[in-house]
Amino acid sequence: MSELTTTAMPIDTTVARYRRVRDATEALAAPLSAEDQTVQSMPDASPAKWHRAHTSWFFETFLLEPGMRGYQVFHPSYGFLFNSYYEQVGSRYPRPQRGVIGRPGIAEVASYRHHVDAAMVELMDSCPSPDTLALVELGLQHEQQHQELLLMDIKHALSCNPMLPAYSPDDPGRAPGRLRSVPALAWMEFDGGITEIGHDGNAFSFDNELPRHAASLAPFGLASRPVTCGEWIEFVDDGGYRRPELWLSDGWALARAEAWAAPLYWLAADGRWEVFTLAGARPVDPAEPVCHVSYYEADAYARWAGARLPTEAEWETAAHTGTDRGALSTDTTIRAPVERSDGTGGSEAVIAAMHPRPVGTRAPLMGDVWQWTQSAYSAYPGYRPAPGAVGEYNGKFMVNQYVLRGGSCLTPTGHARPTYRNFFPASARWPVTGVRLAADR
Amino acid sequence: MSELTTTAMPIDTTVARYRRVRDATEALAAPLSAEDQTVQSMPDASPAKWHRAHTSWFFETFLLEPGMRGYQVFHPSYGFLFNSYYEQVGSRYPRPQRGVIGRPGIAEVASYRHHVDAAMVELMDSCPSPDTLALVELGLQHEQQHQELLLMDIKHALSCNPMLPAYSPDDPGRAPGRLRSVPALAWMEFDGGITEIGHDGNAFSFDNELPRHAASLAPFGLASRPVTCGEWIEFVDDGGYRRPELWLSDGWALARAEAWAAPLYWLAADGRWEVFTLAGARPVDPAEPVCHVSYYEADAYARWAGARLPTEAEWETAAHTGTDRGALSTDTTIRAPVERSDGTGGSEAVIAAMHPRPVGTRAPLMGDVWQWTQSAYSAYPGYRPAPGAVGEYNGKFMVNQYVLRGGSCLTPTGHARPTYRNFFPASARWPVTGVRLAADR
Amino acid sequence: MSELTTTAMPIDTTVARYRRVRDATEALAAPLSAEDQTVQSMPDASPAKWHRAHTSWFFETFLLEPGMRGYQVFHPSYGFLFNSYYEQVGSRYPRPQRGVIGRPGIAEVASYRHHVDAAMVELMDSCPSPDTLALVELGLQHEQQHQELLLMDIKHALSCNPMLPAYSPDDPGRAPGRLRSVPALAWMEFDGGITEIGHDGNAFSFDNELPRHAASLAPFGLASRPVTCGEWIEFVDDGGYRRPELWLSDGWALARAEAWAAPLYWLAADGRWEVFTLAGARPVDPAEPVCHVSYYEADAYARWAGARLPTEAEWETAAHTGTDRGALSTDTTIRAPVERSDGTGGSEAVIAAMHPRPVGTRAPLMGDVWQWTQSAYSAYPGYRPAPGAVGEYNGKFMVNQYVLRGGSCLTPTGHARPTYRNFFPASARWPVTGVRLAADR
Amino acid sequence: MSELTTTAMPIDTTVARYRRVRDATEALAAPLSAEDQTVQSMPDASPAKWHRAHTSWFFETFLLEPGMRGYQVFHPSYGFLFNSYYEQVGSRYPRPQRGVIGRPGIAEVASYRHHVDAAMVELMDSCPSPDTLALVELGLQHEQQHQELLLMDIKHALSCNPMLPAYSPDDPGRAPGRLRSVPALAWMEFDGGITEIGHDGNAFSFDNELPRHAASLAPFGLASRPVTCGEWIEFVDDGGYRRPELWLSDGWALARAEAWAAPLYWLAADGRWEVFTLAGARPVDPAEPVCHVSYYEADAYARWAGARLPTEAEWETAAHTGTDRGALSTDTTIRAPVERSDGTGGSEAVIAAMHPRPVGTRAPLMGDVWQWTQSAYSAYPGYRPAPGAVGEYNGKFMVNQYVLRGGSCLTPTGHARPTYRNFFPASARWPVTGVRLAADR
Repeated sequence: MSELTTTAMPIDTTVARYRRVRDATEALAAPLSAEDQTVQSMPDASPAKWHRAHTSWFFETFLLEPGMRGYQVFHPSYGFLFNSYYEQVGSRYPRPQRGVIGRPGIAEVASYRHHVDAAMVELMDSCPSPDTLALVELGLQHEQQHQELLLMDIKHALSCNPMLPAYSPDDPGRAPGRLRSVPALAWMEFDGGITEIGHDGNAFSFDNELPRHAASLAPFGLASRPVTCGEWIEFVDDGGYRRPELWLSDGWALARAEAWAAPLYWLAADGRWEVFTLAGARPVDPAEPVCHVSYYEADAYARWAGARLPTEAEWETAAHTGTDRGALSTDTTIRAPVERSDGTGGSEAVIAAMHPRPVGTRAPLMGDVWQWTQSAYSAYPGYRPAPGAVGEYNGKFMVNQYVLRGGSCLTPTGHARPTYRNFFPASARWPVTGVRLAADR
Repeated sequence: MSELTTTAMPIDTTVARYRRVRDATEALAAPLSAEDQTVQSMPDASPAKWHRAHTSWFFETFLLEPGMRGYQVFHPSYGFLFNSYYEQVGSRYPRPQRGVIGRPGIAEVASYRHHVDAAMVELMDSCPSPDTLALVELGLQHEQQHQELLLMDIKHALSCNPMLPAYSPDDPGRAPGRLRSVPALAWMEFDGGITEIGHDGNAFSFDNELPRHAASLAPFGLASRPVTCGEWIEFVDDGGYRRPELWLSDGWALARAEAWAAPLYWLAADGRWEVFTLAGARPVDPAEPVCHVSYYEADAYARWAGARLPTEAEWETAAHTGTDRGALSTDTTIRAPVERSDGTGGSEAVIAAMHPRPVGTRAPLMGDVWQWTQSAYSAYPGYRPAPGAVGEYNGKFMVNQYVLRGGSCLTPTGHARPTYRNFFPASARWPVTGVRLAADR
Repeated sequence: MSELTTTAMPIDTTVARYRRVRDATEALAAPLSAEDQTVQSMPDASPAKWHRAHTSWFFETFLLEPGMRGYQVFHPSYGFLFNSYYEQVGSRYPRPQRGVIGRPGIAEVASYRHHVDAAMVELMDSCPSPDTLALVELGLQHEQQHQELLLMDIKHALSCNPMLPAYSPDDPGRAPGRLRSVPALAWMEFDGGITEIGHDGNAFSFDNELPRHAASLAPFGLASRPVTCGEWIEFVDDGGYRRPELWLSDGWALARAEAWAAPLYWLAADGRWEVFTLAGARPVDPAEPVCHVSYYEADAYARWAGARLPTEAEWETAAHTGTDRGALSTDTTIRAPVERSDGTGGSEAVIAAMHPRPVGTRAPLMGDVWQWTQSAYSAYPGYRPAPGAVGEYNGKFMVNQYVLRGGSCLTPTGHARPTYRNFFPASARWPVTGVRLAADR
Repeated sequence: MSELTTTAMPIDTTVARYRRVRDATEALAAPLSAEDQTVQSMPDASPAKWHRAHTSWFFETFLLEPGMRGYQVFHPSYGFLFNSYYEQVGSRYPRPQRGVIGRPGIAEVASYRHHVDAAMVELMDSCPSPDTLALVELGLQHEQQHQELLLMDIKHALSCNPMLPAYSPDDPGRAPGRLRSVPALAWMEFDGGITEIGHDGNAFSFDNELPRHAASLAPFGLASRPVTCGEWIEFVDDGGYRRPELWLSDGWALARAEAWAAPLYWLAADGRWEVFTLAGARPVDPAEPVCHVSYYEADAYARWAGARLPTEAEWETAAHTGTDRGALSTDTTIRAPVERSDGTGGSEAVIAAMHPRPVGTRAPLMGDVWQWTQSAYSAYPGYRPAPGAVGEYNGKFMVNQYVLRGGSCLTPTGHARPTYRNFFPASARWPVTGVRLAADR
């Protein structure tokens, strides 16, 4: 089992990769104080120190405890405190109360990580079986998912603070004069027919990407870029949040109940829009992809625009194909904000990339914002979860959620891929969720 | 525009059909007192008199007001009181409060129905346009949906009464000695490939059944009959409601919170199971299809049984095909409990059919219990809702729900068809929801 | 045991009194349809048919079952359905679900009442003991309390109906030209010192009025009449509902959460105020006592007016004394809207009196609106609840409620008295609750 | 304005007292990490760092901003963040979200405290007016209240942690062999008559203790000591938490809903009871006063014991009198765990006293546990809140709460006094609340 982008990255040893991923987590947490790492701003989010501990617990529980002779768990209560949702490994602390836990503090969590890391290195040095190596890779992929969650969650927490503090004050990517013209929205055209989607199994993937299978598509078009903030302002100004005929019923009810008038984190300021980011509040950039919109808003926007959301089969087909019937050049290079080849994973670099960049600056489908698809998150034909508790990783969430594709500016380098299936409830706004339009042909 | 099963039913005039459908509603309400018709036992349900009024409001709002010169609405407040969810025709009374409304009483509702009926007959006698006739048919199909809802809802309300009163005391279908042996579960086998699903548009269908389109299927098997109560008892006895590894995460949380231990309406009685029905409480019949189970329970059962739920494309393919690779004889005759050819729609006959019959007595896919599919309710490729407020009929609910197929013992005759897409949230237990297993091949 | 106002009412036999009180309940329910009698508009309220059944259950449970040889309960489930809150006589149906019960219907409830009445007459004819007669009287006083509750509750239910239907269309007391000038607010002055409050035990009282005991009062003044609607409009116009400094903290939070801007049942209509009454909506009469205000509103008004609410000891002292240090002439005659000497208790007469009358037309302390005191509802020194389940009548509610004094236009004749302690939570607005000011001297 | 116990404490300058009280707060927070100080375990509680900041905000807002020329507020957002409930000084951050605020961290809060302290010393050195000195004293008394709240709140937060961490591991007062015999419960007897309660105004008191006024008492007895844990175990073993006839209706409903079976913080462990304390979990000491019981539990216990809760007039009369009709010697010396004469306020000493001591070791009415009275918290006759925002300190909470008397082991030395009125809702269990019985005579 190896990484997906084997050709793009020098093959390093598992240990080196382990250290890089683990270090990247610590680099992301480094700007956060002990107090910052303790808070939980809503039940869906978790404290930063919880993410740091839980990712360690994953290695301890699924690799060290069953697989390393004589391993001593770091603390007998951590199995209860840092189990996220694995029913088969025992009971667990209630998720909505994670912010009530002052101890362990960040120093003890760091010790926990070191304890686990030392044992993991020993394990990896001892000629582990392919199954063990596959689990190590799963643990690292898991940790990368939590790197993005850590940032999403702390962004939400900081946004609840009336002082609107920055995760980091630096915003080097936002230099003056950087505003470029936005490329006109073009449509990539696809003929339809039988396609194949899903991962081919020749490298790492999550189980929910398997198996590769046939799908039937009608002819469709897919937008060449995500919807921008400038376009979203047009939707707002046209009454997008006040016209029920544009909305799904559940979405309209929620939008009314919570008085939505713009994407999450947008702030009305003297007749113009500002947005809260990890670097603090700043004016909305019309050239950026809009993000922090729910499925409901994405769907309403698409209806307003005379379009619709793509299915995941359409999206993946476009991402795999890389071309439409003529024009599209697909550059699937994925940028690397978090994990870098020099292994430093420094937070300065991290910060620089932690907001969507103006559209037109990257690969057309991947990378700036997760893109809602109209596809409910469900099992692919022939899907089989792994046996045992690890099988709870993905399968048991295949209900009441929608698939998102493409990765975001917060996704670690090399983590996402065209077959990658992210998923959230239709109401979720705190991930970096945006919109790419599709249309029937 | 005509009914689907044109060959099974003499073509009658629109007016005669209108009267039959409207009369059937009144026949269903007839056993219910004024008090019974007033109660609402939960926000998802509605009072019986509300169903009677709302179905009349539909004709008034979408046919008489726009299409009949000089029509006088029966009461200026009814548009507010009896609008269910159509945002584009104005504001409406809050759904969870429908049981707080004592007036209009059942006599005024009957007058309302007569007022609307008289105008509708006049309208239908005046050479209406095809579009008008299509709307009449939509109104009648709508009313048939509410006939089933009326029964579902009153069953729930009666079940909340500690006296467990019967909708009707008669249960002629449940005569002594009727218990037959249950046919062994067989599997209908399908090869997979490209299939077509969706309505062909040559007769009435709801917009959500359109358009007919290609779907790609892997080889699969489909059970020859629904899961029985006897089989469900095995699941219960094997800890089905106590083993989280069988459940979707959302389902497990809900089952714990509400202490589910059996299907809705099952009552533990001295070591055996009873069930509340429209004829009161009686012992569970092991030969009957299980019903009143949520999607979560259906999915957990399937996992326990080493199978899965079918997709709607699989289900419909099997229903259309009518045969597996050899053995299946499909009898697609649909029984007619509610609307009868003699036009009486008498409640005695209605009652007789108001519970699932022992399996093996009907067409293999249609009729006894709605069958959960694993397919989220979403738009077919190329789906277009109707313009205007009628377009709110189906489309705006295409999120957070799952498709059910097949009709139930409470569905009026001729209403369901193989392409029919019913839908409920995964948590719903009060419809007549059952399980047909599928499996990968 | 006899009634309090023995001199004002001819002594009749217990049976005749029993019949009069029971008939009065039926007269109050008579204008209500089966549907009206079924609805429950909020958890604090009960359906009218429930009140009719529960008051019968009281006689059945506390008199007939324990005291009448061979008595057969009318229905084995009614003990569960119609027990309000008596823990010691068994479990009971949950209060918030009373509106879900369609059966028994109003006809069965009438039969239940007849069944109980026949047995009760037999019991009363059989030389009952003084203890039994005391329980009969308690049952009748209990039924009179429910007469007022029935009217309060149906008023709330009708107010939830957008058609604002009247309990009865007749409003003879509201004839044109009836608007009189409101007497100026005068202050009755009291010297303070040691007083005695509480019932003297020489006639019927509830246990919570006992025992009579000493209280120490500082000098105080008490308003000669309740606050009027005209005065309340001044409060509203002066920002009374927008100024937190006038409000108790809990009250302000609730007023904000529920967007209070006027008393319950007041409706803003084109720049003036209307009010929903049992006779439907009509303009607010500035000369009437304001009613349907919570403790919080009463307290805020008093603060705004530079006054305060009276204590119950102050109120009762004034009511007992009947005079201030000079001027007040107290007319303690209590009008008789519900139970009348001719025994008819006709609903026409009932309706006529079912709204507050213009101030200045009655005894100064009693009768139009219940008056909030600042006294929390608690036990008098030496209070002893009755032994057994009847002891749950009052004592267990002595927490989190406030005492009201004086009776209201909905209180049956002869039911209230100066020592009578009504009680509701500070948030309650659906009783006929008004304000009489007090002040330190 | 000076302290109450002027004779017991050397008169020091205001500045010295200011420093001592402020230092005591910091000493209490010192054992808590940044993470500990950030968490909020329920809406009623606040993070420790919030208490530290809010008490500073009080001085800034009510003394420095209005009274010190040129004072610069430390941070423009702190007025919003650290206003607890003063409506008249502006809007504020929602209380239930205090645990979501990572910033300011504990270092910034310390800087805030220093900033305020420096300015306060300057203000106190500048010949302040008596009114200003009175406000300083109010601010110090306010801070002492928050010292107790800080400990109550962190105890609750720590109790939510499955590791049951100690605030401090030291528990020197709990040395082996310390268990003494409990003195038998004696009754102090009082004749009744007219008494006076309330503060005399000759030293500091809160406004709610004023004015002193007459009260009338019937003869009563008051227990010589609080109810012990050993006695409470008898209540538990006798079904005290399972017998509705012992409970107020609201209390029974809450006890059922939350499954109460013992005081808060009691843990069933192998057939015996343990209790969570600030020093961690340890066996329940039968000789200690029971604490962490709600008003409902206190009332139920009293009913079970054939007694009742005292009124606050009874309690205060006994505390003032210091003697019953013969035997009682009242030692009103109040121990000094928090603020000590050497000004160190060291946390070791603090910890030593932070749990109730075995009964019989102190003054009979004051000091170990707050004692529920049956008196609702309301205004004394003639009560006048202070003008302006400071008037919101007490008065606006005079509804839906009950008075507690006596101080607790967490109350700072010299803070409580016999006229002191603490108050909490009847449901509160997280304060150090216990029971002293009373009885009619």
